[in-house]
Amino acid sequence: MSHGKQFTLYGTVVPPNPMKVAIVLEELGLDYEIVPIDISTGEQKSPEFLKLNPNGRVPALVDHSNGDFVIWESNAILLYIIEKYDKEHKLSVTEANEKFALLQWLFFQASGQGPYFGQGAIRVIGVLENVLSKQEWLVGGKMTIADLSFVPWNSIALTMVLADYEGFDVEKQFPAFSKWHEKMTARPSVSKQLAIRAEYIKQRDGK
Amino acid sequence: MSHGKQFTLYGTVVPPNPMKVAIVLEELGLDYEIVPIDISTGEQKSPEFLKLNPNGRVPALVDHSNGDFVIWESNAILLYIIEKYDKEHKLSVTEANEKFALLQWLFFQASGQGPYFGQGAIRVIGVLENVLSKQEWLVGGKMTIADLSFVPWNSIALTMVLADYEGFDVEKQFPAFSKWHEKMTARPSVSKQLAIRAEYIKQRDGK
Repeated sequence: MSHGKQFTLYGTVVPPNPMKVAIVLEELGLDYEIVPIDISTGEQKSPEFLKLNPNGRVPALVDHSNGDFVIWESNAILLYIIEKYDKEHKLSVTEANEKFALLQWLFFQASGQGPYFGQGAIRVIGVLENVLSKQEWLVGGKMTIADLSFVPWNSIALTMVLADYEGFDVEKQFPAFSKWHEKMTARPSVSKQLAIRAEYIKQRDGK
Repeated sequence: MSHGKQFTLYGTVVPPNPMKVAIVLEELGLDYEIVPIDISTGEQKSPEFLKLNPNGRVPALVDHSNGDFVIWESNAILLYIIEKYDKEHKLSVTEANEKFALLQWLFFQASGQGPYFGQGAIRVIGVLENVLSKQEWLVGGKMTIADLSFVPWNSIALTMVLADYEGFDVEKQFPAFSKWHEKMTARPSVSKQLAIRAEYIKQRDGK
């Protein structure tokens, strides 16, 4: 890579999982170049990309400041970034038990949120509402990568999957969740990526 | 809890995720009591269990030696156990980049393996075959919790989901995967839990 930046992020911010990574890189002010991987043509299954990620899915992240270390699985990438580059714990926690609570929410996000739609999405939102009605953030009384890991999927769930789901009114039915999601989408790191995604989609589908 | 053991594990070893945790506790010689949660009657959604795990899923683990600390999401539980109680790194790694590779495989297992069946299971087995044809274990040249996290689901995939899947011959089509899986099922920690599961199923379904 000759772009001179610290990271190469493979995958555009259209799919939620690369977007997660871009948001956290933005939050920490880290320098990265995006290499788009075109899912519509199956580029993520190309021999070239499979060398980076044998699972054939976006994102993959290469850290040029760590001997071109390659890591995939978006939530493992988030943990890598905070462990190495969030020394001030802007998006992470330091207390031992809280660290495991953070891991727990990242696994819940990975296994519980990603694969589901419709009823499944509402179930996940219900679990979050139940927790967030008692506390402002998931772990440690502050926003962490555990909270941010939910944003891209929630945004898709709310604006696409559940947009015209009968009887679904997120602000009325899930007020704490709704507030939590809005606080994050108001952040420059998130709104920037949502805007980039909207532009990509417009370019692709708006022709 | 008055059983006097270090851990209480909520969930029987019939579902794959509590089994994962039981295997790792066995591997490390840790003392635990199982409290069965009856999924067939929806006990995991009871108010009592939801206090332990707001997601209403097994397993949940309580560590009585750490102020009754509660953790859920099976792979977060595995990370908790090794960080706290695998000081000799029997099932874990020490090198910084390898630690993230281990996380990466745990997230792949959580998001890629659990929710899929049939064709999905074969896809996951194919990814593993591709990696294991070049190396004996997933991370660090030794068996870790990353490898063990796959055992319960693979065992279900092979003995149930894919048992009579047309044209599927695991030893012929996925020899490296097959050897890897057999090495793990030959371990006392794994074979003990598989036997307990078989006995549970017999009691339940064999009446």
